[in-house]
Amino acid sequence: MSDSQELGITESKEHATGEWYAEVIQKAKLADYAPMGGFIVTRPRGYELWERLQNHLDSWFKDTGVTNAYFPMFIPESYLEKEKDIVEGFDPEVAWVTHGGYDELEERLAVRPTSESIITPFLAQWTRSHRDLPHRVNQWCSVVRWEATETKPFFRTKEFLWQEGHTAHEDGDEAWDEAMTRLDQYEKLYEDVLAIPVLRGRKPDHDKFPGADTTTTVEALMPDGKSVQGATSHYLGQSFAEAYDVTYVDEDEAERTAHTTSWGLSWRSLGALVMTHSDDQGLVLPPALAPEQVVIVPIWQEDTKDEVLEYAEELALDLDEEFRVHLDDRDERNPGFKYNEWELKGVPLRIEVGPHEVDDEEVTLVHRPDGETETVDRDGLDEAVGDHLDAVFAKLKADAEENLEENVREAHSREDILGTIGQHGGYVKAPWCGDEDCEDPIKEAIAAEIVMVPMDPDEDPIGDECAICGEEATETAYFAKSY
Amino acid sequence: MSDSQELGITESKEHATGEWYAEVIQKAKLADYAPMGGFIVTRPRGYELWERLQNHLDSWFKDTGVTNAYFPMFIPESYLEKEKDIVEGFDPEVAWVTHGGYDELEERLAVRPTSESIITPFLAQWTRSHRDLPHRVNQWCSVVRWEATETKPFFRTKEFLWQEGHTAHEDGDEAWDEAMTRLDQYEKLYEDVLAIPVLRGRKPDHDKFPGADTTTTVEALMPDGKSVQGATSHYLGQSFAEAYDVTYVDEDEAERTAHTTSWGLSWRSLGALVMTHSDDQGLVLPPALAPEQVVIVPIWQEDTKDEVLEYAEELALDLDEEFRVHLDDRDERNPGFKYNEWELKGVPLRIEVGPHEVDDEEVTLVHRPDGETETVDRDGLDEAVGDHLDAVFAKLKADAEENLEENVREAHSREDILGTIGQHGGYVKAPWCGDEDCEDPIKEAIAAEIVMVPMDPDEDPIGDECAICGEEATETAYFAKSY
Repeated sequence: MSDSQELGITESKEHATGEWYAEVIQKAKLADYAPMGGFIVTRPRGYELWERLQNHLDSWFKDTGVTNAYFPMFIPESYLEKEKDIVEGFDPEVAWVTHGGYDELEERLAVRPTSESIITPFLAQWTRSHRDLPHRVNQWCSVVRWEATETKPFFRTKEFLWQEGHTAHEDGDEAWDEAMTRLDQYEKLYEDVLAIPVLRGRKPDHDKFPGADTTTTVEALMPDGKSVQGATSHYLGQSFAEAYDVTYVDEDEAERTAHTTSWGLSWRSLGALVMTHSDDQGLVLPPALAPEQVVIVPIWQEDTKDEVLEYAEELALDLDEEFRVHLDDRDERNPGFKYNEWELKGVPLRIEVGPHEVDDEEVTLVHRPDGETETVDRDGLDEAVGDHLDAVFAKLKADAEENLEENVREAHSREDILGTIGQHGGYVKAPWCGDEDCEDPIKEAIAAEIVMVPMDPDEDPIGDECAICGEEATETAYFAKSY
Repeated sequence: MSDSQELGITESKEHATGEWYAEVIQKAKLADYAPMGGFIVTRPRGYELWERLQNHLDSWFKDTGVTNAYFPMFIPESYLEKEKDIVEGFDPEVAWVTHGGYDELEERLAVRPTSESIITPFLAQWTRSHRDLPHRVNQWCSVVRWEATETKPFFRTKEFLWQEGHTAHEDGDEAWDEAMTRLDQYEKLYEDVLAIPVLRGRKPDHDKFPGADTTTTVEALMPDGKSVQGATSHYLGQSFAEAYDVTYVDEDEAERTAHTTSWGLSWRSLGALVMTHSDDQGLVLPPALAPEQVVIVPIWQEDTKDEVLEYAEELALDLDEEFRVHLDDRDERNPGFKYNEWELKGVPLRIEVGPHEVDDEEVTLVHRPDGETETVDRDGLDEAVGDHLDAVFAKLKADAEENLEENVREAHSREDILGTIGQHGGYVKAPWCGDEDCEDPIKEAIAAEIVMVPMDPDEDPIGDECAICGEEATETAYFAKSY
């Protein structure tokens, strides 16, 4: 493979989204496929995106009372079985450890698919009085779900990285507020860091987390018209607290049962990030997550090399304090090659400097992805770079918002739903009676499903009659194909 | 259990070290035992120590060219088998996943005991030219080793948290330097952050990491006279590079085989931390890791409550920017109870303020663990608190240094080694012929072993004849009982 083949993305985002996505992930060195189907290796440039995302979310969690902890990655089968909904929900997807060394285990151990069943018993153990509440613990870890589907890095892998938060509260209102706080933070992460607008809502009852009272979600629309469940926050009511005995003595010395929540965001968010903004030149990254925010490419001939390089080095030094800046001074590559490489890797802002820029004490700034170019004074460059990075972010966000706005449509019959999703993709909202049976014909025909319903219980549905069965509509369902 | 029982450590560090240790870990809320033997739950106060330790080490790694990544937690059996030393070394300790969902897997998967065998093949895949080298990847993750010994939180658990770094280099010198850079950083972490002096050395050949050319170690002496292997850094030579085909084309277009290293530090370092500094009142923590560095305890009567609380709140606000400070203004607890609780939890510096302090614009500072007390002006409190935290660190370090210095002894015969360790514990250095057979009689008699030999190959042994067999001594062996 020649160097230029290695850099060039050969697939088209528009015409072969899946292949294009896999190519971007690998050529931008975010991840590789592991030898076992369903697993990936997250390379340093991919992991750095996860680390930066973690830093944002983790600091918000901590600012709002969450503490990190670490629970065992194995869960005894008998513990899983205490919450029957959990078992039923995850049984077909659990990886089992049956042997330790040369010996068969007396009880097999599940590799955690999620940790309610090991964490909730400890919340119970740590709780005696109302003074011990609330508990808010979170862990950043990997979990395993043995789904037999095609591997899609970050979107669909048998092992994935995520955070899972688990809380216990005195009453239902406080627990509900907790679930909403986390949903707000997920929304903020998508909108303010990843530059991806989301729709907030709850999952229909038949698609809730096993055992949950309410599962809430942020949904993001991908450019191919499919929805991604971006993160979920579950109000668990008292089902888990009852199953695992999370009780406390209240101020009046009465024993009461706690209310719990759980909430999680996985590296699927990185998949949504890549899918949303990247293009046929490669990765596109919002400045807050980019490993390099600015790359400086000097352009010289033999007789101007010294002055240009010196100028470029001074710029790098100037910008280094405030930005993640990289000076690409490689001798063995020409500027065109460097442009391609850094575009592939998603650097939001390129600084080009040649002899003209040196003479005029200027620099040329080029935006990724749209190539917008401006020449600015070297004086005050710090501020200009900050402004231009903000501008890049704003453009990414605006494009994604436009895509979302254009792709929420309304339908009032089965044919209308099928036809609209079939033609345009995106979301189709329709009045719905609340019965799972009315989702089935859509699912069977075009593999679209109800990805959310709006959260406000007082909001009237957008029509009186269910678009499918014609019975009374009780809510508005958002249908979409989904990752 | 009454509140005071809950706070009090009932076991004695000196007379029942193991029981005392387990009690401190649980009562200071660092960790609990999980339902499965060999596993623990790391509670928020314990995990915060790990996070702060991570922040130090991770930033040093990154400053010296290391990038984080994440590899699958499962390793196919056939991959493990490619490096026969690895298999032989870890086979008895591997946890095996045999089923995914309802189906038996075609090839069973090891839960990683360490990741050379899954990471090295990818280092090979990412390497074509000398320009691709060096690779320096690290992951923070958990690993599993199914050792059938008694659980000791952080010291001995079947699953443990660690970091494992893996690097590949053009030649042996560079790889050796890499291994030394990491050993230096481990030493710095112990000495400058954990306040624990260490001895640097290498493991005897018969106790190297399976497949390594050289295993280097930092060893820390615990107060009960046993040594803890604090972290290891392995120069792997070309054995792994050959087994997994890490080759590159050098500047002269010749194909060559790389040299690799690996290095790891686990949460055992937290065990060493607790064991070294804590006392019969509970946890003692160096300021850099303490969740709260300063606790303010106001002392009031009904008629002075308002002024004292106001003063305490102002102090908390003043200190908040520079330190992790907590104001304990609970109404339902008296100052004595609060002192005990924060001593148990290991807060390095307590600030006491009552009406006298308010009147004189002063505060009283009390050190943990030795109770040294000083009253200082409120003016310039920031600086005083900084100085006193430094003083607390210096005292912890000095005590640990004294313990180490007093407990390295010399011996020149088998009886001498046995008697000295039997009587004093600690390290006994003795001239040694290099033969594993000469360790056996010491191991069998008192379960002490050679924990390290000094690293300098030119250094003469401390005697001419092996203390055990009387043959020519080639090096100096440090014998000790070990965790």
